[in-house]
Amino acid sequence: MMKSLGLIVEYNPFHNGHLYHLQQAKKQSQADVVIAVMSGNFLQRGEPALVSKWTRAKMALEAGVDLVVELPYAFATQRADRFAFGAVSILDEMKCDEIIFGSESGKIEPFLKTVDFLRENEKEYNEWIQRHVKTGISYPAAASKAFATIPNRPDEAVDLAKPNNILGYHYVNSIRENDSKMHIDTVQRTGAGYHEVGHGTDKIASATGIRKTLFEGNGKLSEIEELVPPTTYKGLIKHQHEFGQFLNWEGYFEFLKHRLITFSADELSEVYECVEGIQHRLKDQILRSESFQSFLESVKTKRYTWTRLQRLCTHILTNANKEVMNKALREQPTSIRLLGMSENGQKHLNTIKKKVELPIVSTLSKYSDDFMEMDIKATNTYILGFPSRFHTTLWKQEYANPPIRI
Amino acid sequence: MMKSLGLIVEYNPFHNGHLYHLQQAKKQSQADVVIAVMSGNFLQRGEPALVSKWTRAKMALEAGVDLVVELPYAFATQRADRFAFGAVSILDEMKCDEIIFGSESGKIEPFLKTVDFLRENEKEYNEWIQRHVKTGISYPAAASKAFATIPNRPDEAVDLAKPNNILGYHYVNSIRENDSKMHIDTVQRTGAGYHEVGHGTDKIASATGIRKTLFEGNGKLSEIEELVPPTTYKGLIKHQHEFGQFLNWEGYFEFLKHRLITFSADELSEVYECVEGIQHRLKDQILRSESFQSFLESVKTKRYTWTRLQRLCTHILTNANKEVMNKALREQPTSIRLLGMSENGQKHLNTIKKKVELPIVSTLSKYSDDFMEMDIKATNTYILGFPSRFHTTLWKQEYANPPIRI
Repeated sequence: MMKSLGLIVEYNPFHNGHLYHLQQAKKQSQADVVIAVMSGNFLQRGEPALVSKWTRAKMALEAGVDLVVELPYAFATQRADRFAFGAVSILDEMKCDEIIFGSESGKIEPFLKTVDFLRENEKEYNEWIQRHVKTGISYPAAASKAFATIPNRPDEAVDLAKPNNILGYHYVNSIRENDSKMHIDTVQRTGAGYHEVGHGTDKIASATGIRKTLFEGNGKLSEIEELVPPTTYKGLIKHQHEFGQFLNWEGYFEFLKHRLITFSADELSEVYECVEGIQHRLKDQILRSESFQSFLESVKTKRYTWTRLQRLCTHILTNANKEVMNKALREQPTSIRLLGMSENGQKHLNTIKKKVELPIVSTLSKYSDDFMEMDIKATNTYILGFPSRFHTTLWKQEYANPPIRI
Repeated sequence: MMKSLGLIVEYNPFHNGHLYHLQQAKKQSQADVVIAVMSGNFLQRGEPALVSKWTRAKMALEAGVDLVVELPYAFATQRADRFAFGAVSILDEMKCDEIIFGSESGKIEPFLKTVDFLRENEKEYNEWIQRHVKTGISYPAAASKAFATIPNRPDEAVDLAKPNNILGYHYVNSIRENDSKMHIDTVQRTGAGYHEVGHGTDKIASATGIRKTLFEGNGKLSEIEELVPPTTYKGLIKHQHEFGQFLNWEGYFEFLKHRLITFSADELSEVYECVEGIQHRLKDQILRSESFQSFLESVKTKRYTWTRLQRLCTHILTNANKEVMNKALREQPTSIRLLGMSENGQKHLNTIKKKVELPIVSTLSKYSDDFMEMDIKATNTYILGFPSRFHTTLWKQEYANPPIRI
């Protein structure tokens, strides 16, 4: 029986830090096969991915991941708790033996203790959160404040004020919630700088930094060459050569404008997370904004954080209605979309296939459910960010193409 | 008391044929002032106008029209009967003494007789239309066939199989429907060729032909110079110089794609004229279409004519919902948007102002009603067809700008 390791990733794009994490996690777990559940074309912070999920899946496979499956949009673009729940559920369903995530400390005990403590004191914790939310701060800020104020918390508790710890916390919590038998552990993240990665010493920078360089620098790919594995670099070059541009929010701004000017406040309130009349602010500011960046700046408040608004804009863009998104608040994913596999991954898939209860979807045209319908809308929308001469081809490929094999 | 002449126009763009009609109508009516009710940014055939309503209003004023008022979107983009009804109602409300429209024959009697005959035999006529519609042909085709088959029609009846006669018929019919005291007459249209226009002999071509040359030729404006008055030519040059491009459906195709891929068949059925499941065909074909032109070609059938589909696409684009559009099927316009005036026009406006019962809206920010809300959505959408650096300025101008004065 092969031992399988599960990773929860966005790979936007796959860089040296990801490679380091992948290698450390493999070593630590002694796993024979690595399964990554990866966000599709829209990411947790409510952004379109730099390059498509296919390109990103290929980069992951070439770097040593064996199976890449898609985290459905309805989970991928949610707050940390549901993002984590969806991802952990899929890895559980894929019969993973262990999940390893990155953290500042590299120690799992504080996460386990914090989760157990807050599960025992759930009611009190939630009351504290609500109390802080009412003062007008954002939910994440309220949660971290609640945690700081709740009495009797364990000394070794993990610091939930740090965003990076929040996801880890929710991975552990989701395992408990699912009564999962999966083992969970963490490896220490590396900061920016030079580290032993791959076959030598490579420079590590964050994905955010890499994207920033690509869009704000003179857009020269060579500037990020030393920050990513050669396979990623090749993938980015190929994408740029084929499509001429990387994807970001600015490329979808016209569509957002159109939606906001033609939909009434009432109609917009059907969109998931469009609450408390925020759509009036959006409709107002869109008429004055020259870019997506300046638009979000003008709408942002203490309560409506950048990420929350960006996610809302993504839902407006993809027309993510409440029904399907709320379903992800209550239920587990209902199918598993396979994006790519190595030979090793395929061998493993054959051994677990019979035990996986959800449909494993290789080609889209043969299967659909509510979450997948939402994924199709999201992907079809994502494709609009490419130059228009590619639209029909990319739409067709999304339906017809089998998973990537390397 | 000044005698006022009303014209119902689109001026897309104002050309020598329009000038000829304007001059003939002025001569025939001996009017002191000319009021044009003009479609706004979207036209009766369901197309965005070549240049904005402001540019077109200016061209009209410079050619001799005294007052230009806007036909609201909810009437302007409807079938001939409601288009005519909205326009005639506005001219009636503006206290016009006479309406003159262009026709092949230049004789008003056949129109009057046909209208009277069909109003007397309305029930039978409608039954014939329904019978023909059921065979799967379009409504206009069915109406013209019904007219051909109805017994006892007067010998001198106007030929309702000719599209140009349909509008004239409905102008007359709307006058009857409104119990209006306005006189109505027609002047003969001139075909293509050279005619006495303005101060010399000018070449006349259709607006369709002119637009075709602008988009399909090498786009050189000089090719149409002899087909339009110098004032129009100057206006087109100015527009091209400022914005670089004229507006047509292809410039909105991306927005149509986005709407069709992100809205479910159910959601699309809320759009006006989205009936009989046509949205399934639209959703299907959009994924395969490289241009608006080829999209409409692929969706068109005997029953769904090009114009009907183009209007539907316009309504999808502007999110024209059933409520406001159906209101235009039952009610008259509720306000009059003034787009421009000459000195003579302003003098006239001052004399009639007190008698006009509807609000005359000079600046948008001070007034709104359901029809005008729809106009705002349509104009805001229309502006998206301009290069994006102009959007915020044009949106602002639409709210802030007073009518054009020459």
